[in-house]
Amino acid sequence: MAGNAFGKIFRIATFGESHGRGVGVVVDGCPPRIRLSSEDFAPDMERRRPGRDSFHTPRREKDHVEILSGLFEGLTTGAPITLFIRNQDAESRNYEILHRLFRPGHADFTYFKKYGHFDFKGGGRYSARETAARVAAGVVAGKILEPFGIRVFSYTVELGGIKAQSFDLDLINTNPFCCPDPVAAEQMREVMTKTRREGDSLGGIVEVRATNCPAGLGEPVFDKLDADLAKAAMSVGAVKGVEFGAGFEAARLKGSENNDPITPDGFRSNRAGGILGGISNGDAITMRVALKPIPSILMEQDTIDREGRAAKIKFTGRFDIAAIPRVLPVLEAMVKIVIVDHLLRARTMLGDV
Amino acid sequence: MAGNAFGKIFRIATFGESHGRGVGVVVDGCPPRIRLSSEDFAPDMERRRPGRDSFHTPRREKDHVEILSGLFEGLTTGAPITLFIRNQDAESRNYEILHRLFRPGHADFTYFKKYGHFDFKGGGRYSARETAARVAAGVVAGKILEPFGIRVFSYTVELGGIKAQSFDLDLINTNPFCCPDPVAAEQMREVMTKTRREGDSLGGIVEVRATNCPAGLGEPVFDKLDADLAKAAMSVGAVKGVEFGAGFEAARLKGSENNDPITPDGFRSNRAGGILGGISNGDAITMRVALKPIPSILMEQDTIDREGRAAKIKFTGRFDIAAIPRVLPVLEAMVKIVIVDHLLRARTMLGDV
Amino acid sequence: MAGNAFGKIFRIATFGESHGRGVGVVVDGCPPRIRLSSEDFAPDMERRRPGRDSFHTPRREKDHVEILSGLFEGLTTGAPITLFIRNQDAESRNYEILHRLFRPGHADFTYFKKYGHFDFKGGGRYSARETAARVAAGVVAGKILEPFGIRVFSYTVELGGIKAQSFDLDLINTNPFCCPDPVAAEQMREVMTKTRREGDSLGGIVEVRATNCPAGLGEPVFDKLDADLAKAAMSVGAVKGVEFGAGFEAARLKGSENNDPITPDGFRSNRAGGILGGISNGDAITMRVALKPIPSILMEQDTIDREGRAAKIKFTGRFDIAAIPRVLPVLEAMVKIVIVDHLLRARTMLGDV
Amino acid sequence: MAGNAFGKIFRIATFGESHGRGVGVVVDGCPPRIRLSSEDFAPDMERRRPGRDSFHTPRREKDHVEILSGLFEGLTTGAPITLFIRNQDAESRNYEILHRLFRPGHADFTYFKKYGHFDFKGGGRYSARETAARVAAGVVAGKILEPFGIRVFSYTVELGGIKAQSFDLDLINTNPFCCPDPVAAEQMREVMTKTRREGDSLGGIVEVRATNCPAGLGEPVFDKLDADLAKAAMSVGAVKGVEFGAGFEAARLKGSENNDPITPDGFRSNRAGGILGGISNGDAITMRVALKPIPSILMEQDTIDREGRAAKIKFTGRFDIAAIPRVLPVLEAMVKIVIVDHLLRARTMLGDV
Repeated sequence: MAGNAFGKIFRIATFGESHGRGVGVVVDGCPPRIRLSSEDFAPDMERRRPGRDSFHTPRREKDHVEILSGLFEGLTTGAPITLFIRNQDAESRNYEILHRLFRPGHADFTYFKKYGHFDFKGGGRYSARETAARVAAGVVAGKILEPFGIRVFSYTVELGGIKAQSFDLDLINTNPFCCPDPVAAEQMREVMTKTRREGDSLGGIVEVRATNCPAGLGEPVFDKLDADLAKAAMSVGAVKGVEFGAGFEAARLKGSENNDPITPDGFRSNRAGGILGGISNGDAITMRVALKPIPSILMEQDTIDREGRAAKIKFTGRFDIAAIPRVLPVLEAMVKIVIVDHLLRARTMLGDV
Repeated sequence: MAGNAFGKIFRIATFGESHGRGVGVVVDGCPPRIRLSSEDFAPDMERRRPGRDSFHTPRREKDHVEILSGLFEGLTTGAPITLFIRNQDAESRNYEILHRLFRPGHADFTYFKKYGHFDFKGGGRYSARETAARVAAGVVAGKILEPFGIRVFSYTVELGGIKAQSFDLDLINTNPFCCPDPVAAEQMREVMTKTRREGDSLGGIVEVRATNCPAGLGEPVFDKLDADLAKAAMSVGAVKGVEFGAGFEAARLKGSENNDPITPDGFRSNRAGGILGGISNGDAITMRVALKPIPSILMEQDTIDREGRAAKIKFTGRFDIAAIPRVLPVLEAMVKIVIVDHLLRARTMLGDV
Repeated sequence: MAGNAFGKIFRIATFGESHGRGVGVVVDGCPPRIRLSSEDFAPDMERRRPGRDSFHTPRREKDHVEILSGLFEGLTTGAPITLFIRNQDAESRNYEILHRLFRPGHADFTYFKKYGHFDFKGGGRYSARETAARVAAGVVAGKILEPFGIRVFSYTVELGGIKAQSFDLDLINTNPFCCPDPVAAEQMREVMTKTRREGDSLGGIVEVRATNCPAGLGEPVFDKLDADLAKAAMSVGAVKGVEFGAGFEAARLKGSENNDPITPDGFRSNRAGGILGGISNGDAITMRVALKPIPSILMEQDTIDREGRAAKIKFTGRFDIAAIPRVLPVLEAMVKIVIVDHLLRARTMLGDV
Repeated sequence: MAGNAFGKIFRIATFGESHGRGVGVVVDGCPPRIRLSSEDFAPDMERRRPGRDSFHTPRREKDHVEILSGLFEGLTTGAPITLFIRNQDAESRNYEILHRLFRPGHADFTYFKKYGHFDFKGGGRYSARETAARVAAGVVAGKILEPFGIRVFSYTVELGGIKAQSFDLDLINTNPFCCPDPVAAEQMREVMTKTRREGDSLGGIVEVRATNCPAGLGEPVFDKLDADLAKAAMSVGAVKGVEFGAGFEAARLKGSENNDPITPDGFRSNRAGGILGGISNGDAITMRVALKPIPSILMEQDTIDREGRAAKIKFTGRFDIAAIPRVLPVLEAMVKIVIVDHLLRARTMLGDV
């Protein structure tokens, strides 16, 4: 009810905050007899981990995932799986200032309005640290998708105004920005370097794709697959927009241009983004999300204090310059979680009861 | 569970289909002692009603809202309010064809894959007729918002590639497209006329705005106000994208440009769209949604039949050319419903327990 | 959220009140392709209907079930099924008194405390009339159970202090009290006649049994099958207690007496009532519920008015003398609904995902 | 969905098993600014802890509650509170036997049927160890109830066939069985001693009482306060029956005897058990639950192995002889959790929205 859980049948509930013991997640509804170990989490946790390259916050956390419950002899049992990631690197920022002032672009102001306090030690519950728990839950979801051959991946199509012009998905992992266009990736590096020097930050656009999804996932009329994916994406802190298939561009097409013709060999195009009437049509599901620039910048900004008095705020230290690429495994995790939930929901309708 | 309900505390569940007795909605969680009558629904139902002008399907339905439950002596009681809208105008299309062929851009194909059948008489459950029930529920939500002074309205910012260039919100109701720019509205009329002649259809972009919302609405971390609004918008059939505040444009701004400075008199700008960290900040909530062109067009299209054989499909008759402007009251209703739900949810946290 | 819905995957939401247009229910989560018609509801509605014999309120309602949504060509579609039962017999009691006074044993007092009003015209939302909607939903549940061979039925084991001593379930339908003991049934008739003459009312105990349930229904640890059945039973107005298998008597047994020995041919006894650890074990599920006497009696009672002043209340007219036997189809409906819900929930766990 | 969570607004989700790292609970929906520390949990955890006296299993666990999330500077924040209790005393039973055989009266058989495996190391997820997490969650609920003056406590009214005859609630804590009748308590000690010598076990009946609850808690028509309490109680492993107020005895009373007369000073009696029409009436809420005897006994029993072959099973070692008194804090915790949930739910309806 308080918004910390997501999903209906495959349901995750995250907990924890940046300043406390750690963050974690209870994954409920995972079918029994799936092999799972702490090691399975390492690759995706590593992709989300801060401090991997010069463009990201050098805070070094190991982000080891501890499995607190739900396994018996290495297999899931059908019981809730609890995953816990300890905070190892205590925050060392100047809390004195943060205690009094609301950081522009952050949720300090709104949390204070809602709860009468805010977690000034780096955001607390609304810190991006919470997304570590999502990535861990996504690994469990991925295990369920594996036997179906469903694959979820993502890549950067725009960063700091630089747009990818070519889309060779084999090249995604050849550059730090996970960009399918190596030339654009080089320009992205330049704008990132320049922006870091200025103490500013950048936004971008990520495309997430799910291939090999069977037709029939998604529920009418409110729990449409794209509606649930949109909610999942928007629940990630920095996201300000989401679109499917042709997306906002569809608003400029005519019906004769936008409709995907159906042929005996499948749809001739995929402007629908793999979803028709809220239900997967068997084509690749394609979602793009817009990420705002990181609000923590090293430039002086206007703000107010708790009592409403005008103030100036200026951070020192090191911050991420862009949510990209650390946000990619987070978005993939959310997409996996939505698809697993709908796979299991579909089972309540399909075939003979 | 099957996706027909929306909301947590203020919860609507729609039912009905285009080919049957009618469509309706059960509104649960409405506080008691609110005056309500059938007449209250007329204005919004009229705005959504088909056949109002030459650009829309001439199917004429009265769309009278019957209150089946939940009132006592003209006041709500706290019990579920059931609203029912009878289908009065039976469909008269050539069902023979629709029975065999999947309409491109419609959900025939995906429903058939999911349920083993599809409602060929005009879409059945996935017909836009279902949105009449949402509009009715939105009227109840509006009654709850009234004493708070919260106002939700919407307008067209783009239609068939024509963009509004000026934004005088007082002019919204002076043209059939609810466009705040009268010059653009005139161009919209032209492109609509031309498109109708061609038997094609158009998409567009609508902006929905909620003013006077208190700060503090929205729940961390999954039930963020914008996450719920995004789901609400995406659950409307023709929507392919949604964005808040600066939206996709935020991806191209720097942190120093995108952060809204905070002053003793409020935020100096509203690139956040009234929402920070998923919680309303007191500024106007601003959401834009992209609508794909209506998939029913009078031009021949490639498709397949139930057995997977190639076929041609060509509609005759009259259809809407664009979802705009009929979709406006539907989007407003969904936004009202989300805001009421979060207003009531906030009560479980605020103040002394 | 407001308590008007029940079930997770197979979910019913009732609406309506005794004084308004009628009562109804939205049944969501029903699988597609099940044949259903208005006639299917008649037998169970008839069993619940008031005025069938001299011991029950002579209010005569036809209780015809109208299907407002969810069918296409006589088959369910997977869309919500809305069932509506109009109120045909307007209340004609002396509302003057009821408007001012709280009826002892009824919910007038508590509704007034909760909502600031109460539906003095015969109870409104908390009238037993609401259970007509449950019976209708139970018929849909029964259709789903049919192909599984699961059978749910009930009988009276005690009425007005008269206990059944023999249990020939073939004799249930040979007497108006659905008692498996014909001798006890005769005594029940006598105590009912005597009590009616006194203007008083009686309670009793009903046993509900579900046979042929597969093992494996029920979810740990809170949604145990017996926990959900207990909630279902207690949600019926007059119920004051519920027990499974040996029930309260189990409290007096030793472990060596109460444990059901397991043999290659099944359990040697069924003191568990068909449920172990909250999960069905394949044996008959056996639940007993205690029904308090009908609170409406023709004797003078002490009460207070809305302002808290002492008053006397005395009803005239005709009322049911006991909830038995009209409550039997209501309890059976609730049990069917719980079993269907758990059957569908089990599908999300069993077999390969 | 998988049954591991309970409550709507104040919602607990337990996790963990007897054989793993530990058990825990995520408490969501707790209002902010409530002082909480690990020490607060000690008294109730101690009451539930095994091995306190000669009648209970001597397994010694410290059951220290670790707070993994949800606090900031010693106060709740509104974020999920995660409580974790490590398993410190590894099981040392003869797993060899348990691996092959289903224990009569336990859930081994049904879990195996449902999940294809069962946690033979002491029950795993369905071990009574899970209730430690409930007790911890109940402490948080208790903190919320405190300022309302609502008090929840329980006592033994029957054990091994010995009934309490006097009810001096001040004497509850003067004997190990929490019995309000010291004479009966002495007899209970004798029957317990004798039963232990025989290697057998006993059941009993516990009464839980909540005083000072405001009128108006509980939701019509399915989420009645007694319906939710019944589900809460039945979700505790050993419970086989539950009743409120006069309970099963009400089935034998006449309406004139059972109705509680209303006077300007309140209800003259409390046969309703503090609940009318599913909503609290301001009187003490009174619930009685029947506990079956502990199924683990030191006598030989008939059972089958995984392959369905007949077998004999005989435990050695030490087990609890009765669920009483360790189950008392568990039942109290569940009652507190239900009341807090309904307190918060009531806030969404009461007063001006």
